[in-house]
Amino acid sequence: MNLINYGERFFDELEIAKYRRKEVSVDVELNQISMSSVGYRALTVIRGIKDKKIGIFIVDSDDEGEIKRGIEQAAKNAMANERDEKWVELPKEQKYNAPEIESNYEIKDASPDFFVNLLNDAIKDVRTRDKRAMVAGGAAGGSWLEMRILNSHGIDIMQEFGSTFMYLYVAGRMGNSVTPGIMDFDVRRDMNLDKNFIVSSILEKLKYAYTMKKSNKTEGNVIIEPLALAELLYFTLIPAINGERKVKNTTPLSDKVGQKILDEKITIYDDPWHPISTNPIIADDEGVAARVNKIFEKGIFKGFLWDNYWGNISGEGSTGNGTRNFSTGGIGIGVHNLVIESGNKEKEKLIGEIKDGFLISGFQGAHSSNPDTGDFSVVANPAFKIEDGKLVGSTVFMLSGNVYSLLGNVADISREQRKIVVMGNGVMPDMLFENLKIAPVSR
Amino acid sequence: MNLINYGERFFDELEIAKYRRKEVSVDVELNQISMSSVGYRALTVIRGIKDKKIGIFIVDSDDEGEIKRGIEQAAKNAMANERDEKWVELPKEQKYNAPEIESNYEIKDASPDFFVNLLNDAIKDVRTRDKRAMVAGGAAGGSWLEMRILNSHGIDIMQEFGSTFMYLYVAGRMGNSVTPGIMDFDVRRDMNLDKNFIVSSILEKLKYAYTMKKSNKTEGNVIIEPLALAELLYFTLIPAINGERKVKNTTPLSDKVGQKILDEKITIYDDPWHPISTNPIIADDEGVAARVNKIFEKGIFKGFLWDNYWGNISGEGSTGNGTRNFSTGGIGIGVHNLVIESGNKEKEKLIGEIKDGFLISGFQGAHSSNPDTGDFSVVANPAFKIEDGKLVGSTVFMLSGNVYSLLGNVADISREQRKIVVMGNGVMPDMLFENLKIAPVSR
Repeated sequence: MNLINYGERFFDELEIAKYRRKEVSVDVELNQISMSSVGYRALTVIRGIKDKKIGIFIVDSDDEGEIKRGIEQAAKNAMANERDEKWVELPKEQKYNAPEIESNYEIKDASPDFFVNLLNDAIKDVRTRDKRAMVAGGAAGGSWLEMRILNSHGIDIMQEFGSTFMYLYVAGRMGNSVTPGIMDFDVRRDMNLDKNFIVSSILEKLKYAYTMKKSNKTEGNVIIEPLALAELLYFTLIPAINGERKVKNTTPLSDKVGQKILDEKITIYDDPWHPISTNPIIADDEGVAARVNKIFEKGIFKGFLWDNYWGNISGEGSTGNGTRNFSTGGIGIGVHNLVIESGNKEKEKLIGEIKDGFLISGFQGAHSSNPDTGDFSVVANPAFKIEDGKLVGSTVFMLSGNVYSLLGNVADISREQRKIVVMGNGVMPDMLFENLKIAPVSR
Repeated sequence: MNLINYGERFFDELEIAKYRRKEVSVDVELNQISMSSVGYRALTVIRGIKDKKIGIFIVDSDDEGEIKRGIEQAAKNAMANERDEKWVELPKEQKYNAPEIESNYEIKDASPDFFVNLLNDAIKDVRTRDKRAMVAGGAAGGSWLEMRILNSHGIDIMQEFGSTFMYLYVAGRMGNSVTPGIMDFDVRRDMNLDKNFIVSSILEKLKYAYTMKKSNKTEGNVIIEPLALAELLYFTLIPAINGERKVKNTTPLSDKVGQKILDEKITIYDDPWHPISTNPIIADDEGVAARVNKIFEKGIFKGFLWDNYWGNISGEGSTGNGTRNFSTGGIGIGVHNLVIESGNKEKEKLIGEIKDGFLISGFQGAHSSNPDTGDFSVVANPAFKIEDGKLVGSTVFMLSGNVYSLLGNVADISREQRKIVVMGNGVMPDMLFENLKIAPVSR
């Protein structure tokens, strides 16, 4: 508490957040290991408040002298600023209720070698099993994060996590052209990355990618796979559950708590401790105790996510969703691990029961969705045509609509879930929608 | 040469590039100092070649043990790869011809304080001089880079540079709405950032931003300011002079060396040692001697820029334009400081002589230009209407065309030049174009 005491000379309230990260990463380009790397970063963020004036300082170091100089600089920054009359206070001391989840120290010591071998084996597998296939891109690696959050109200929480990832992006040669690229991945909190699953899943889809099916249908039964679902929700639903947007009145859910918004088959919660979560945090970036927050229960909207600042303003209090922006040092409201509850039917069965429809693996253009309304207009790519319960070829089409209408009418949800980290952090099933309106793409 | 000797056990050829960077930065948001930061980074990139197989390893460290382990890892990466039959060799020992340019050590020791005060003074100036103005964003800071490039052919070159920057982004309140944002900046290799120039230049333009002039003209005399010019060239002309594109035949300039391509008023060269350049390098990222490369002389295309790899393949040799990508560790072809030679007339006179026309300060959408053809379609914003030699209000319009047609017919070039770092690195004048076709924007 030495540094906190030092800081109290300058501030009414003070927070010191220290992060140390080690990252090992190996990249693949055109069937080759293009590079491997080991990255280290120590980062300390100081946030101090004096007379409701806020000062923030960031330094790439955890050296005591640097932090002391940083505290002084943060105080000078604060002095130069105007009062933020909305400021209430930093979080109070907390009780932490996280379940005991053991860190995997193998990840901390992982060498690039391990991932080089894994990727090389995967490249060989892909090219042996499909002579026309090439691994256009890919990567694998591990990251280890240690964080300690201290504040002048007595918060002092230390935590550490490791996770690993691997993805491959594969295309098939067809004369002078190539198939749409097919991607699959694995993300874990241990070293058991499932190379065989990734390769098999990609090659299974690649088979159909060689046959391009023109889509001139305007309606069909559609399965949206976990990654595509995450891409869509990240730009539509996730902003809408952010408490800051409730205060500023820029979410369509503003006065909808307790109302049925989505299909009753849908239950969504933010659960850092889900069995396949890769960040089972004890506390958020402000030291507030992490928890499981229900967001939709059987379609009924249960409430917003809050950090300390906006939670204090609204009177709802923090839900443990304070997330630090490492460029600005500031705290925003973030999802830790958005879980959509799984259904009962196997994905294979969902596909098997479709007579004439589509499977969507990814969306393009989701970033231009409108979070204020939930409206979106995206290109389904890669996507596949399903006939008589079987994939028969790849296709591309447009899907326009509104996320609340879409999720207001879900036909079924798969039993399987996937851990997603590309667009936000989540655990997502496949979802089946019946008689969805689609539009052909002119290509 | 210890580490090079160590690496020669594993490789036929070897390059070790070490970078140390210190960055001080202060950010402004809504009239406030939102944060200040001090960043440190040490980075070593190892590139080794064995039997024409290339291995690259990156580590956030300059520790000898880490680098030795990195050399071993790079060797393993290389072994796993296929031969690159196009590989010739790493650069040979060089003679360096750079002029003596002294580094400014004040920048190395600069504290955030200096920039906090500068920004606070600027914010005060802006708000005092225009009560409706608010500083929506801005930043100032300094960066110090030390780099050392070593290779097994005897290259061992050490260099260091410092530079400072400051920019402000200001909008004016008009009832419930705001004016288009006006930005200006300064970039230097000393500490004398010209706050007064930035503030005055912004407020001068802001005066006209309060008056929105609808533009229904379809043609006019247009001045494109330095930053807007850089934005356009970065996505059209600069890719076209890249030697890799010549080898791959993806530039419209492929077989045009010696031909007149641009207006004879235009002379363009890449000059790292220009008096207002902020990176007066002695050698590029491969240790190849830096030089001044003529690109267009009085409109005639003089030749492409090359790094070692593509220069060897083409037989033209490196022009000292090898630039390291810090994410991949690889080398690409980059411009160090693209200079467009200035003209004779003062900018004020250029404006003064326009009866009915436009001044363009920035472009939106330049990134979707087509570098293979030079075609572009951009929105001029911020832009200003000129009547009888005076700015009379702000406006927005579209400009579509081809960069070679545009630069094939230049009416005049300003005497003043600005140092640009936002889009590539350059020194740009203002350019006047007569009877340019424009299109209204529906907003």
